[in-house]
Amino acid sequence: MKKLMNDVDSILTEALDGFASAHGDIVKLDSEYQYVCRRELTPGKVALISGGGSGHEPLHTGFVGHGMLDAACPGQVFTSPTPNQMLAAAESTHSGNGVLFIVKNYSGDMMNFQMAADMLDIENATVTINDDVAVENSTHTTGRRGVGGTLIVEKILGAASEQGESLAELKMLGDSTNNATASMGVALTSCIVPAAGKPTFEIGPKEMEMGVGIHGEPGRRRVELTSADEIASELTAAIVNDLSLKTDQQVIMLVNGFGGTPLLELYLMANSATKILKARGIRIARYLVGSYVTSLEMAGCSITLTAVDDKLLKLWDAPVHTAALRWGR
Amino acid sequence: MKKLMNDVDSILTEALDGFASAHGDIVKLDSEYQYVCRRELTPGKVALISGGGSGHEPLHTGFVGHGMLDAACPGQVFTSPTPNQMLAAAESTHSGNGVLFIVKNYSGDMMNFQMAADMLDIENATVTINDDVAVENSTHTTGRRGVGGTLIVEKILGAASEQGESLAELKMLGDSTNNATASMGVALTSCIVPAAGKPTFEIGPKEMEMGVGIHGEPGRRRVELTSADEIASELTAAIVNDLSLKTDQQVIMLVNGFGGTPLLELYLMANSATKILKARGIRIARYLVGSYVTSLEMAGCSITLTAVDDKLLKLWDAPVHTAALRWGR
Repeated sequence: MKKLMNDVDSILTEALDGFASAHGDIVKLDSEYQYVCRRELTPGKVALISGGGSGHEPLHTGFVGHGMLDAACPGQVFTSPTPNQMLAAAESTHSGNGVLFIVKNYSGDMMNFQMAADMLDIENATVTINDDVAVENSTHTTGRRGVGGTLIVEKILGAASEQGESLAELKMLGDSTNNATASMGVALTSCIVPAAGKPTFEIGPKEMEMGVGIHGEPGRRRVELTSADEIASELTAAIVNDLSLKTDQQVIMLVNGFGGTPLLELYLMANSATKILKARGIRIARYLVGSYVTSLEMAGCSITLTAVDDKLLKLWDAPVHTAALRWGR
Repeated sequence: MKKLMNDVDSILTEALDGFASAHGDIVKLDSEYQYVCRRELTPGKVALISGGGSGHEPLHTGFVGHGMLDAACPGQVFTSPTPNQMLAAAESTHSGNGVLFIVKNYSGDMMNFQMAADMLDIENATVTINDDVAVENSTHTTGRRGVGGTLIVEKILGAASEQGESLAELKMLGDSTNNATASMGVALTSCIVPAAGKPTFEIGPKEMEMGVGIHGEPGRRRVELTSADEIASELTAAIVNDLSLKTDQQVIMLVNGFGGTPLLELYLMANSATKILKARGIRIARYLVGSYVTSLEMAGCSITLTAVDDKLLKLWDAPVHTAALRWGR
């Protein structure tokens, strides 16, 4: 295992300290490392809180800030945060108008966020993200996994909450945005969980895992590595079918790197996907290309599409100021 | 070789097409793939043009836009662009007040930019970047290499040119910013140049290349992988000594990933470097943490420090709107 680290047990707290130092203008880190929250809260706004295992950076801490999350709770690598973390985050960021939890569909996260929701003495609701079309049920999941689409839902809800939408409205918007979002990924190499010290899975020098999860969970099948065009074709076909996208539908497309794949290849994949979607008459209204929902140093990528109308597009374009996403004003 | 690609010969043009599709609001791609330029030029401004081999994305195309470069010329992977590319970029972006070339110190780039400068029928000057303190002279270089500091010089000059500074003023500012900037990197794995199809260098499962170049060129020495704190200590000591940084000096710190290292590790390295610099009384006024000057999928990172006064800090903070860096307004 080759990693830039000091001690396996302190990777998370050291990385959080570095994150808080680098982005002290945007975020504050709780003194017990329970959560990262916005330095300046918008008064009266529904508090948006997400979280999950670490190792997927910049998800979720990198999306804390104006126009996106109010707080994020980082668990240990690939391990759910605890209910206490979510409670502490909710109590320190809510402003009387409720708390919305945004939770990726993994058993541990679902259970712990549910416990926090039950214990919380503040009105709250939960939006569950399950955008991964690769498989039904998986190593850590009952039902579909939550992957790259998470950041799209977080961005859309962040904008809407900033504009004063109520908890009930945000819950509906989050569910409908999740339903309009689908993703699928491919891995070329495994990640190595620091505490395990060895690759999560073995993969041959000419193989890829089609439909991989963001913890290196198995996908649809293990096959020989093929061309970018063929990979993009399989990923987009699965997504387009799942969403039943019609000609002239506008979409946001995220081409997401898993951590070990360089930007050059991600832009090449974006080009492959663009050609295929254009040929189907689908209109890519917005692009996001980069490593945003990662699996440590895993090589590979995922494609996410969200079907959008003009309302969703306006929310996507609304100002955001976080460590990892920044545009508008 | 495991890469997301179709054909080795078309990696660059396909990636550029994807880049242009994704960032069509900011950039235009020349129809012959000679350069990427800003969609909207600022009238009367000195044109800032950079370029170099591809494989270092987002450098340089990702830094084209308001407040940074006017154009970038992408060569093939790890290969200088041609003088014709630079001429075409200069002719299409200058507005009568001269052209400033920003060139990393590699023999091929220096020769080709010099040829372009000689052929160009427009007043021009060149700022050479040579911030890498690891070695004097190297595989592709006479004198020190230009590495991560390039983006800092590009950002500072971009802001100053936007504010109307003259070619002579920008040339002086670029040289002084380069002189105030020093970098050093470490590699944990090799990159694989697509056309070569095999690792640029062999490295053992417990080794690191201390002082590596951004093409995988040898650094100072090959040693056993050590802790993040020890690596940060060696990198920062070399940089601080080179710049003769004194107590209370303000710096910008870039913790740069080489392409295969996840953000979690980069923030951990940022934390290690912060502790060390704080103990020396050096004040980190601004941070930038991410994979900005890469070497394909190489694992590892570099640290760059630029000693800044209030003027440089204001230029750093000035609005920038590019694919890879975006802040302010």
